[in-house]
This record gives sequence, C-alpha cells and structure tokens, in this order.
Amino acid sequence: MEINRILVAGTIYNEMEKRIDSEQLEKSFRFMDSKAVTEEDLEWADAFISFEPPENFDFYNLKWVHSLGAGVDRYLFNRKWKEDVLLTRTICSFGERISQYCLSYVLKDLQHHDTFEQVTRQKEWNPIAPGLLSEQKVLVYGTGEIGQEVGRAFSTLGAKVSGVSLSGHPKPHFEEVYKVTNEKNQLHNFDIIINTLPLTENTYQLFNHDFFTKIKDTIFINVGRGRSVIQEALVGAIQNKQVRLAVLDVFAEEPLPEDSPLWQMQNVIITPHISAVTTVDEGLECFLETLHNIDQGKPLHNQVDTRKGY
Amino acid sequence: MEINRILVAGTIYNEMEKRIDSEQLEKSFRFMDSKAVTEEDLEWADAFISFEPPENFDFYNLKWVHSLGAGVDRYLFNRKWKEDVLLTRTICSFGERISQYCLSYVLKDLQHHDTFEQVTRQKEWNPIAPGLLSEQKVLVYGTGEIGQEVGRAFSTLGAKVSGVSLSGHPKPHFEEVYKVTNEKNQLHNFDIIINTLPLTENTYQLFNHDFFTKIKDTIFINVGRGRSVIQEALVGAIQNKQVRLAVLDVFAEEPLPEDSPLWQMQNVIITPHISAVTTVDEGLECFLETLHNIDQGKPLHNQVDTRKGY
Repeated sequence: MEINRILVAGTIYNEMEKRIDSEQLEKSFRFMDSKAVTEEDLEWADAFISFEPPENFDFYNLKWVHSLGAGVDRYLFNRKWKEDVLLTRTICSFGERISQYCLSYVLKDLQHHDTFEQVTRQKEWNPIAPGLLSEQKVLVYGTGEIGQEVGRAFSTLGAKVSGVSLSGHPKPHFEEVYKVTNEKNQLHNFDIIINTLPLTENTYQLFNHDFFTKIKDTIFINVGRGRSVIQEALVGAIQNKQVRLAVLDVFAEEPLPEDSPLWQMQNVIITPHISAVTTVDEGLECFLETLHNIDQGKPLHNQVDTRKGY
Repeated sequence: MEINRILVAGTIYNEMEKRIDSEQLEKSFRFMDSKAVTEEDLEWADAFISFEPPENFDFYNLKWVHSLGAGVDRYLFNRKWKEDVLLTRTICSFGERISQYCLSYVLKDLQHHDTFEQVTRQKEWNPIAPGLLSEQKVLVYGTGEIGQEVGRAFSTLGAKVSGVSLSGHPKPHFEEVYKVTNEKNQLHNFDIIINTLPLTENTYQLFNHDFFTKIKDTIFINVGRGRSVIQEALVGAIQNKQVRLAVLDVFAEEPLPEDSPLWQMQNVIITPHISAVTTVDEGLECFLETLHNIDQGKPLHNQVDTRKGY
C-alpha cells in the first residue's frame, strides 16, 4: 500500500506537526484541528490520523485510518466501515497505564488512605490494619492486551484474578476465564470487578440492572467505555451498596455533564478519562512505526478487525 | 530445648488467649497485659512472648523470647542480651504488607489522586496524564526479606530499583546493591527512597543532614524505624523541597507527639505505624510454628542474630 498524503487532525495536531517536521519524512502532510477539516482535505488524503473522525468524515480516497487512541468505537460503533480501508490503533503503554490506575485506587481503599488523612488532620493516632491484595478476588472483563496486563499486575501482587471474554479461552495471568454470561452466577464471589472492554454491539449496556443485582459490596472500576454501563443501574447499585466503591474513568457522555448524579455521590471516584492517555511521544512513536511497517509491507500488530470492532 | 511455661504479654494477649486455649497445647500459659507482668511471672516462665519487654524485664530462667513484631530493636537496641537465650521474631506477610503500603502512596502521587479529588468536588473535567512507575528510579534501604519484596513489587511493575545494604551483596529484584555509604554520591539519581532497615547501631540516625542535602525533589518513605531519621533534618528537607513528599509510618516517639511539626506540614503523610501490622491470626500462626519447630528441634528461619541486631 502506498501512502503519500497524510492528514493529521485533532487535539494534538500541533505537537504532532513539530515532531513530524523534524523527522523529515518524504510524505506530504496536512495538520489541522478536527473542526477545520474540509471535504477537499479528505479527498486529498491517502491516510487520516486522529482520535476520532470529524463530523463531515467520509472515506473518499482514504486507504488507511489510524486512531491515536486505543478505543476505535468512535470510528466503528453504529457506523459503517468501508471494507478495503485499513484501520489501525495506538497500542503502547495502555496496559501498563490502566493497570496502575486500577491498582492505585484499590490500594487507596485497602490501605485506608482517606481514614488516615482524616486522622492526621485531627492529630489522632488510630492504628487500623490495612487489607491485603492476597485477600481479594478480582474479575477482569476483557482478556486482551490491556486486560492481561491488569491481570498480571494484580496477580503478581497476590490477588486471585479471573477474566471474562467473548470466547472464554484461557489466557495468561487469569486463574479462570469465563465466556461472557457464564460468569453471571459467579459474580457474588468477587471483591473487585474491572471493565476493560471496548465498546461494541456485544458490550453496549453489558453492565445493566441484572448484572448489578448479582454483586454485593463490590469495588466496580470502569476503564473500558461509559456506554457499556447503564448509568441509572450503576447509581442504584451504589445507593444499595451492591457497589461499595465505584471508580469511573469513562462515561456515556464526556465530559460528564454537570447535572450527573454521580458527581455528588459518596463512594464514587471520578477521573476525566485519563487512565489510558496517549502522550504525544507515544502517539507519534506508534504512528511512525505503523507507517514504516505499511511502507515496508510488514505485518501490523495494531490492525483492527473492523467486523469485530476491536 | 524444652519449653513448658509460656508467658504471653502485651496488646493482643486477650485474643491470643482465646485462640491458644482452643489449640489445647500441653503447655502451661499465663496471659496478661505488659504492665501486669511481675517478677514472679518472669521467674516462672521458660518463654516470653510479646511485642516488647515490660519495664521490669529480666531474663531469670528464660530460654526463649519471641517478638510478635518483625522489629526487635525494643529487645536489643541499647540493651544487653543474654547470649544463651534464643530470640525469634514474627515474619509473615510483612514484606507483602510493606510493599503494598509503599506502592499505594507512590501510585497515589503518580496518579494525581488529590488533584482529581479536588477537581471532582468542583465538577471540573481537567485531564492530566498520570505518571508511570517505569519512569521512576527507586532506592530501597535494606535488602532482606522485606526490602526484597518491596524491590519485587516495584520492579515487576516497571520501576528501576536499586538497594543499599551493609554488605552491598547482589540480591534478587535489585538492579544494583550499594554498600552503605557508597550510595551517597548516587542519591540525586533517585525519585523515590524507601527505608526498610531495622534499628541498630549502624542505622541509628543514618538519614541525617548530610543525607538530605544530597537528594532533590524526592519521595521519602520511612517504614523502617523512626530513630533512623534525624527529624529536624527531615523537616528542613521537606521545607527546602529536597523531599517533595514524605510518607512516614514510624517515628522516634510513637504515638507522634501532638506538638510535632510534622502533623501540620504540607506534603507529609502520617500513618500510625500500620505498614506492617501483626494480625492476631498471623502472630498466632508464627508463634505456633516457632514453638513447634523448637519442640521438634527443627531449624528456625526466624531466629534473630542478637549481635547484628536483626
């Protein structure tokens, strides 16, 4: 595949431009904000690089689309893909990032950070024993690259980790992998449930009322996609203590709207979709590597199966 | 060695009594608060089990002393030990506990927990990229069982970990182990410094003015002993930002006195000596295992070298 004209759009186009200029590649580039992308730009381009398609997106002569994020639902979910267009995504330190995000909030809870912070303000010396990861049973939805790294981080520190996937195939770092829906009658056994799944037709509203009625006193962490959760069901589950602590990095609508009940709730931690940030360095590195592999006709480890949606 | 009369004293004697009763051991026991221990009790006993010796402690006919904590400085530091008395200590999940304690506060910092908490209160959507452990250089003082577990936890999550010990011998999980004092001209290279050392003549006031002048913008974690640090030097180093964040679980005087300047300082986290709590379960298990090994004449993995002090 020959790629000569590359259109880079979206929030980090400015930094990308500086870095790509210094690489002196023998390609033509256009860099711009997503909103500035015209039909003419899209018609001109062989390749489109961005976190998401602009509103006026169409395929025209595009041969390759590269997502600067790991999630490609913005390109695929409820949209039609043109079959002969290559779709690749950024895979870098996301597993590492997401596992440390999850670990940080689980340890914050087990180590009673909030209690000791309050005690410190009151100059009280009140020893309480922290909990240990070895006492925790963790269920990770998604056993791909990211889910496995979450499994590795928790299991290497002593937690018992199981997984849930479409296939139920065994994967490293999981004691057991359930085929999705087969995990349902096991849910009450888990202390911590982590969603790392991409948004697809299969995962849309997967965490619904039925799911939440089956758990009790659980830490629920969402680092996958907001639309995999029915928010009213989650809010009810937090109120009923089915969810003891919700750690939410992704939401159906982002930024989370000001009138969302989640902002005000006890036992909810909200972060602004930062558990798997693409840094300019990593975004650039992954783009350049993919471009190089395409130019050389080499295999691509970050190609998306557009029919599966991830 | 024949042990028949066992004196159990200290804060958890009550719970210990219930559990030991149910074990139906063929030994005589006395259980009491440390302050209630009389000369007659000590003269009576073959073995003394407690976190620390009572004020009126003497060896009389004791053959065995077992510390319910991992640290034995209360028995050895600035005291004379009677050479033919066996000293053992509790080793259970301390490495696991201390490594998770350290990890929790480092991740709290890297993941910007405080920033996002404040942002949540103000309903602000302000994405900031968390830092990664793979960008951190960690120096662990102490390369024994506990230090190695700290090294394992951090290195398995990507951090670069070095150690400091009396001997400087290589140990698993450390890229490099410095002989103590040889690390001094390397200190500026480390982002995180963790003290896990026991209190001995060699480690008393090891973290002094000279040490703190050699670090810059560092996270300093003390899970060893308070008297290894000169507190005024630490306070100055926090004010000068040589220490960017101090995480302190141990203090020269515990509970930390109300008039300590540490309580009020920014960038100081104080916890009430909980990073390596002995739970009743674990304390009992380790005591019973040690008693069993003594009865059977088996080797003891938790015997203290009373001349070295650990």
